[in-house]
Parts: sequence; structure tokens; C-alpha cells
Amino acid sequence: MTSSTPTLRDVAAEAGVSPMTASNALRGKPGVKESTRAKVIAAAKKLNYRINLTASMLKSGRSNIIHVIVNEFDSPFYSKLTQALSNEIVSRGLIPFIEQTQYSPDAAEHALSSNPFSGQLFDGEILHATGLGTNVPLSKLNGGRPFVLLDACEETPTVDAVNFPNEEAERAAMQHLIDRGCRNIAIVGHKFAPRADLAHAQNAFALRLRGACGALSDAGLPYDESMVFEAGDVANGIIAGHAIAERILAARSGHGGTEFDGACCANDFAAFGVIRGLADRGLRVPQDVKVIGFDGVTSGSYTTPALSTIQVDFMQLAKFSVDMLSERIDHGTDEALPPRRAIIGYQLVDRESTAV
Amino acid sequence: MTSSTPTLRDVAAEAGVSPMTASNALRGKPGVKESTRAKVIAAAKKLNYRINLTASMLKSGRSNIIHVIVNEFDSPFYSKLTQALSNEIVSRGLIPFIEQTQYSPDAAEHALSSNPFSGQLFDGEILHATGLGTNVPLSKLNGGRPFVLLDACEETPTVDAVNFPNEEAERAAMQHLIDRGCRNIAIVGHKFAPRADLAHAQNAFALRLRGACGALSDAGLPYDESMVFEAGDVANGIIAGHAIAERILAARSGHGGTEFDGACCANDFAAFGVIRGLADRGLRVPQDVKVIGFDGVTSGSYTTPALSTIQVDFMQLAKFSVDMLSERIDHGTDEALPPRRAIIGYQLVDRESTAV
Repeated sequence: MTSSTPTLRDVAAEAGVSPMTASNALRGKPGVKESTRAKVIAAAKKLNYRINLTASMLKSGRSNIIHVIVNEFDSPFYSKLTQALSNEIVSRGLIPFIEQTQYSPDAAEHALSSNPFSGQLFDGEILHATGLGTNVPLSKLNGGRPFVLLDACEETPTVDAVNFPNEEAERAAMQHLIDRGCRNIAIVGHKFAPRADLAHAQNAFALRLRGACGALSDAGLPYDESMVFEAGDVANGIIAGHAIAERILAARSGHGGTEFDGACCANDFAAFGVIRGLADRGLRVPQDVKVIGFDGVTSGSYTTPALSTIQVDFMQLAKFSVDMLSERIDHGTDEALPPRRAIIGYQLVDRESTAV
Repeated sequence: MTSSTPTLRDVAAEAGVSPMTASNALRGKPGVKESTRAKVIAAAKKLNYRINLTASMLKSGRSNIIHVIVNEFDSPFYSKLTQALSNEIVSRGLIPFIEQTQYSPDAAEHALSSNPFSGQLFDGEILHATGLGTNVPLSKLNGGRPFVLLDACEETPTVDAVNFPNEEAERAAMQHLIDRGCRNIAIVGHKFAPRADLAHAQNAFALRLRGACGALSDAGLPYDESMVFEAGDVANGIIAGHAIAERILAARSGHGGTEFDGACCANDFAAFGVIRGLADRGLRVPQDVKVIGFDGVTSGSYTTPALSTIQVDFMQLAKFSVDMLSERIDHGTDEALPPRRAIIGYQLVDRESTAV
């Protein structure tokens, strides 16, 4: 051990490995045994060694930093998504750099194309944010770096994508309400679209609407504009809840209306809003209206009522995303590997909000 | 406009400013007019100019990156805290780098002292994480970089701190329950400590306990071990809710117990757990037990029941933190500026969970 600033050679000597192995271990590269990595990290800690990232970046052109772009931090879906991605990235010895766009398409484009790091610091990008994919192919936006889009909405994919089981799982959610005896079921999520218009649906909420329609149709139940309420977050969910409640109360007092007995919501965030909106009008879940969400956010397990939902596999989402990105990073972007898609799994979680 | 890779001079010429002004604008330094910054950013975008951060970092020794360390992303408190800090940092033209420790003291120490960036990439650090401040003075842990601790627990402060209004606001929360007629009030948060032992309380939950005690004492109400339930998160909140419910049900059936009619919770996360735990035993909030939380997380406004709470000022927290950090960064760490403290403001928000 030297008394001056420790070098990589000092760390390697302390750990009893070659400088190359020490370097690979500290940078989280694959092919280093876990026991060796532990020895090197212990040696680096003992010597108070610090990687000179600047020099390292200049030399390798790799930073091991993965850029994660999401709409926001402070909502139940994004907080869970961010945590899952962060854990997965860290578990690979990589570093997550997480940024929020606050639902601004400009901010999302800016994050991909114009931020101060672009082309310098990130090995690749994972994105779940609003407003992209309309004009410019996504692969052009981030300078051609490896890129994974979550819940893709590109009709002709130009980048790798990991998608939610939108249609199949929302069909299962609607079927669950039907199985619980609901016959007048409000659909909360995408705005109304005639069934035929959903044939080429790409976006997540449109696919979920198609899944909900499918289950209604198979059960011989109607699907029309009067049953559909547009809402993707809690604020619009509350508005939908009020509208649904007013229709129920009108029906009960013989003034037209609709005796809604179920609400199939395209995400948990909107479902929380619907439950809150119904409560504002004195209607109870599940006694008056059964409600199911989609996503499986953490808080749905402890709200009152606890929320029945489609629990998507966030860990699998994170694993697929980082796998795809790592493969692109390792193989370079000049290979003729076409854009790939994966769809994550789900489970229907049956809680109080749909109890009989 | 040149046809080769654009330089800073090209951007400056396009925007009609000096290269120095263009550089300051792109790096988010203070002293550049907003209209000038907009012109420079538009020029950089038009020319597809990208800052070479590596060269920039080597030259200035400054990165404009602020390191934010929190326990986790996926809980109501941390998602709101992270969003507030991120927004404030971005609004100053700085870049937030946000990391989670998963409540591991080792991970927190590692984040401060041993991560690959240390001493290279961060201009300063803001931390709200568990397990630090016990052995090593915090100022030693991060290599002497500017450092702001949120909700400090150092008895002898070695770094700047922004604190919550722990004692005063928890006293107000307890007083609110007393004003609503509660006389058997469970305290959920810190484990029981005799009043005298709280004289030198430093940690947030101990200070909140002292505030709750103070209000009880002034109202002539007792304070003893049987009323105190340790819980800082939803899982332990649920356990506390079950224990409180069992005591109530025992009292109602004449088997000892306690007719708890209120629960004063040291954070919203635990309060959600208490409400859930009471519901598991058929007890309703506020009809059977009135519950108040602390923090003012976003979801408390739309849960059923909506949660009465101490709404702390997260925007002020973020502003104070970044102000303190920026001052240290601008003045250097060798100045004889002693560690400072600030306490953020709060409002008591009166919602359904404490309604009469």
C-alpha cells in the first residue's frame, strides 16, 4: 500500500488480481466472478481508491450509466417503475440516471436529444414518457444510442420495446367484473372509440379499451359511448367518479341515468380517483359499484378498500429492458438487429374493491 | 453554420453572443438573461451542438450535477420529496442525479464515499436516508463536498441541514385530535420513551413524540407506554392498527383493553397502515377512531377516508436545500461558514379522517 493517492495497480495488488481484472470488477463488466469482484471492491474500499470516471470515460467511450426517462416521480405507477428499473440497473453493476419530464413532450425530446450529456455520458436509454413517437422515428431522437421504449406506441417500431399485456389483461379485468355479477360496467381510461376504429390500436389505453370491449361483446353486453369515461390519472378519475355517481343516483330516483354496478379502469391511478369520486357522492365500493384497476401499484394493497387490479410484473419489465439495452450496448448499434418487442406477464389480484 | 461538427463558437455566432455568454447559458450559470439563454439554446438545437461534458468537467472542475440520496423511490413520502428536489434543481439550470439506498446504512455511506463518481462528478449532495450520523461526522463521509442533510439527526451538526417542524407540528396534530374530542389517543411512530428521556431528542420521530407528549400534558391527559406503538411505514402501521383495534374490541366486550378514539401518527405512511389495520378488524375512520398523519403526501388527498395531516412545505424544503448547497458550491468549502439549519413551514390539513 502506498501512502500517496492509490492507483488501480495498488488495488489490484491488494486484491491479488491483475489490473485488468480489477478494472473490470470495479466497472461492473460481465465475466468477473462475484467472489473476485467482492475482493476487489473490498481492496478499493480499504485503500480509499476512487475510479477517475473522467479518464475512464475518455478511454473507453463507455460510462456504464443508463439514462431512465419517466413522466414524473410522485405518482404510484412511476414511483414503482422507477424503483424497479433502478434496482435492476444497480444489480448489473450499472448506474441509473433518472430524469422526469413532467408529461412535457418537449422535455422528453429534450432529454433524449439536447441535454448536456447527450452523446457523452449515457450508454443507453429507457423511456416511459408522454408525447413521443408522433413525428420523428424514436431511433433518430437520441443520436442512435441503444434505446428501449416502455409501452411503445410506434406503429412501425424503430427501437426495442417492452410492452404491457394491455388487451389481454384488460379483457381479464372486465371479465372479472362480469363474473362478479356486474352488468352495467363503466369503462374508465381511453376516450370512446367505435369498436371498428380500435382495429389498429397501438397505444396502451386504446388496446386496453379493445380488451374491455372484447369481454363485453363475448358476454352479450352492450358497448356504447354513454359507458366510457376518459381518465388516466386521479384528477380525471375523480371527475369520472362523480359522473358515474350522478348517473347512478339519477337512475335510483327514476330520472333516467344508468345503474352502473362496475367500473373497469385502465390504470390504478384513475381507479383511486373513481373510488374517491363515488365516495364524494355517498356511494361505496364494492357495495354500490365494484372497481378494478390496472398496473398493481404498491398502495393498492393497503388502501381502503384494497384495490383489485391487474398486477403487471414490474421486475420482469425491468429485467427485459436492461437485457435488451445491454445487448445493444455490447453488440454496438451498427448490427442489423431489427427492433424487438417483449410483453410482460400479469396476475389478476382479487381484493376488496370487487368483493361480492 | 459549418458543415462539420459544430463548436461553441458556431453556437455563439448563430445566437449573436460571445462564446463566454454561450458557454454560461448552456451550463446554466447564473447571470445570463432568460431571453439570452433561450436564444443560445435555440441556436445549439438548430446546429445540433452538444456540450462535451467530459472536456467541460476537466476544465472547470464543476459538473452542475447535484447528487440526491434517498431511501427509496416507491413510497409516498420519498416520491414527493424526490419530485420536489428534482424540480428545484432543474429550475436552477442544474442536473439532479438521484440515487436510492433501500434503507441500507452501508448503501448510504457507499453512495457518499465510494461510488464511482466520488470526487469527480458531483458539485454537492442532498441526503435523506437512514443510518448515517452515528459514528463518523457526516462532513467527513463525502470527501468534504458541499452537503445538505434533510431532517438532520446530528447532535453536533457538521453539515448544513434542513429540518421538518417536528415537535411544533406534531404538537399541533395531537392538539387537533384533542380539539375533536379524542381522549384516548394512541401515538404511532417512535417507540415509547419516558418524557424525561426526550429532553435531548434529536431524531425526527423522537421530536415528534415530544411534541405529542407536550399537547397531552397540557390537556391533562396521561402519557404512558401502553399508548405508544412503534411504526414508521405502512407494514408496521398495519400491525399497530391491529393492536389498537384489539384493545378497542377488548374494551367494548368488557375484557380490559382501551377505548382508543384517536391515533396521532408520526408520518402519513404509518397512518395509512393504521387505517388499513383498523379496517381489517371492522373499525372505521373517523367514526370509531380519528387518525392524523404527518408529511402531507400526495395520495392523502384522495384516499378514502382522505387523510388529515401536517402538510409540510416540500417546495420550501427543496428551495432551502438547493440555496444552501449553491452557496457552499459558489463560496468553496474552505470558508469559515459554520453549519447552518433551517426549519420548513407547515399547515394542518383537516380532512375526513378526523371529521366529527
